[in-house]
Amino acid sequence: MGQPITVLGAGSSGLATAAHLALSGQRVRLWNRSATTLGQALESKKILSIGAVAGRAKLEGVTTDIRDAIGNSKILMVTTPANAHIDIARLVAPHVSSSMKIILNPGRTFGALEFAHALRQLGMDRLPTIAETQTIIYTCRKLADDSVTILKLKQNVLISTLGQPEETQRLVSSLPECLRAQFVATDHWVRTSLGNVGMILHCLPTLLNVGWIECSGAEFKYYYDGITPSIAALAERLDGERLSVARHMGCEVESIIEWFRRTYAVAGNNLFECIRNNEYYRTIDAPTSLGHRYLSEDVPCGLVPLEALGTVFGLPMRITKLAIDLASNLMNVDFRAQGRNLDRLGLGANSMDEIRTLLLRSG
Amino acid sequence: MGQPITVLGAGSSGLATAAHLALSGQRVRLWNRSATTLGQALESKKILSIGAVAGRAKLEGVTTDIRDAIGNSKILMVTTPANAHIDIARLVAPHVSSSMKIILNPGRTFGALEFAHALRQLGMDRLPTIAETQTIIYTCRKLADDSVTILKLKQNVLISTLGQPEETQRLVSSLPECLRAQFVATDHWVRTSLGNVGMILHCLPTLLNVGWIECSGAEFKYYYDGITPSIAALAERLDGERLSVARHMGCEVESIIEWFRRTYAVAGNNLFECIRNNEYYRTIDAPTSLGHRYLSEDVPCGLVPLEALGTVFGLPMRITKLAIDLASNLMNVDFRAQGRNLDRLGLGANSMDEIRTLLLRSG
Repeated sequence: MGQPITVLGAGSSGLATAAHLALSGQRVRLWNRSATTLGQALESKKILSIGAVAGRAKLEGVTTDIRDAIGNSKILMVTTPANAHIDIARLVAPHVSSSMKIILNPGRTFGALEFAHALRQLGMDRLPTIAETQTIIYTCRKLADDSVTILKLKQNVLISTLGQPEETQRLVSSLPECLRAQFVATDHWVRTSLGNVGMILHCLPTLLNVGWIECSGAEFKYYYDGITPSIAALAERLDGERLSVARHMGCEVESIIEWFRRTYAVAGNNLFECIRNNEYYRTIDAPTSLGHRYLSEDVPCGLVPLEALGTVFGLPMRITKLAIDLASNLMNVDFRAQGRNLDRLGLGANSMDEIRTLLLRSG
Repeated sequence: MGQPITVLGAGSSGLATAAHLALSGQRVRLWNRSATTLGQALESKKILSIGAVAGRAKLEGVTTDIRDAIGNSKILMVTTPANAHIDIARLVAPHVSSSMKIILNPGRTFGALEFAHALRQLGMDRLPTIAETQTIIYTCRKLADDSVTILKLKQNVLISTLGQPEETQRLVSSLPECLRAQFVATDHWVRTSLGNVGMILHCLPTLLNVGWIECSGAEFKYYYDGITPSIAALAERLDGERLSVARHMGCEVESIIEWFRRTYAVAGNNLFECIRNNEYYRTIDAPTSLGHRYLSEDVPCGLVPLEALGTVFGLPMRITKLAIDLASNLMNVDFRAQGRNLDRLGLGANSMDEIRTLLLRSG
């Protein structure tokens, strides 16, 4: 069994991770800030998983106490929405050491960088290994407090640490087989951060379906009904801005279409076709309010840092800006002030060349 | 019976106008550029109207020939979408004289100004009386080539000429009673142009329902289902920008909420409530594609001139800009280049003070 693994967050992704690890024979501790979210699982310490991973998983611990949750774990899987990463960093700081591994799954854009900056600001000199994944490992949905459906274990999910490529390799090698099998180590975390496809798939389609989402009683399938050819075409233009920022970082990242082909093995000449040909999306429901992570996570932890960096490079970032402006004005939130802007990443006062050097410098 | 009245355009508004006038005893000639649009009506010369105005109206002429359509008419009712006004101006120019009255119903923003500028550019010195209304007189929907439902004759629709208030008064007095009863003459056309509420009610709600509109098979009621509280709140902020531009023109115009109360006699503390309390909106269907006048008319002939003028005055115009950018990028149309920009209104080379003087100068 080995040392326990701690899963932070009990949303869809947290339940899937905890169940998957436990059903693969790992000792698992599940933490969530709110007891209400844990619900039944708090007492039963069991999670039912159906779908691609099926079984009733028995956990070692389920708790709202961060000290109990971490204990002697050496691996922390952070599965909360990315907008909570900064709070998680502050919360775990007293309990982490440089020998630990923290995996943000997913990191969204510059998650590991933000996490490291937050720990340093708390006075930590020798940081744990901090890694981020390009996207969540599971296509999954929470069914109840203590049950989840895992539609698909994604293949070849990119993972990176803030360190040299060897550090990422070492991290992956140290993971239990069930996790290791899903990851591909990358040479630089710019690939995971700018490889974040959530901001492409989530923001514009949600914004361009506000009426449908908010109209009580109207339910629809997010990907299948909500993403029409013109919405997909606009999202592809947003994707072009993402690729352009990566290119200015000296890094070619795969397009959303290449990502679909690689991750889901679907065919398609454009984003609309890729989505339509992805059977795993068929049943996924749309959000029922604007207060959903498709905006509250992906705008501040995806589009905001993307725009900030693109602007430093002098790129126009038109569609990115449009989406941030629309989300901010609809939700009355200043996402640029609240999200992963350059200040929050510790890059505020630097010039373009300095930022490029800082970002490309290994951890 | 008196002289005939010519109705240009055979959409919902054109059929409603033609039927209403004919059923009130007027001689009516109906023109449309495309014979297909006229369909049955081309042969039968009859229009069936149901609802607030009910009956089978017999027209004097139904034609695609502009010369036949105008003949000895002294009143031209232009009911086409506003983005066609410039073409209509060029088309009617050889057949109009200074004794004629041209009513753009509605003018949208700066319709009369654009029409006059187009006629002047064709070398016309003594212009006809050109008037614009703040909004279409009828809440109506075309049912077939030759039938229309008039849900409501709107009360107190503002109308203005480009001339002094007395010219507008004379125009209204010269109209047949059935039209006259619906109009209120204003002191200045800034009130009708900036009083254009279509751009508030049509653009953002359409843009924020793109998925629902384009998803084949999903049908919904435009006002009742599609305009949720957060969409209405954003539209109210757009309305604030409209009021602010009017204020900088030295003109207080009524807010969208005041307009609802006055026009439909509905109660409501905010736009959402006004829409919900307006029974005439209950049955109005949403567009089924983005190629609908809610965007193709209201963006170039509402938001574009509004933004252009606001920008001259140094106002931020944030929501207006957002809506134009979103529509332009979704539809791949440069609405600012194509729409009623300052050049197209003949104001391009002028300073803010000159524009203010030009705009406030009577006709």
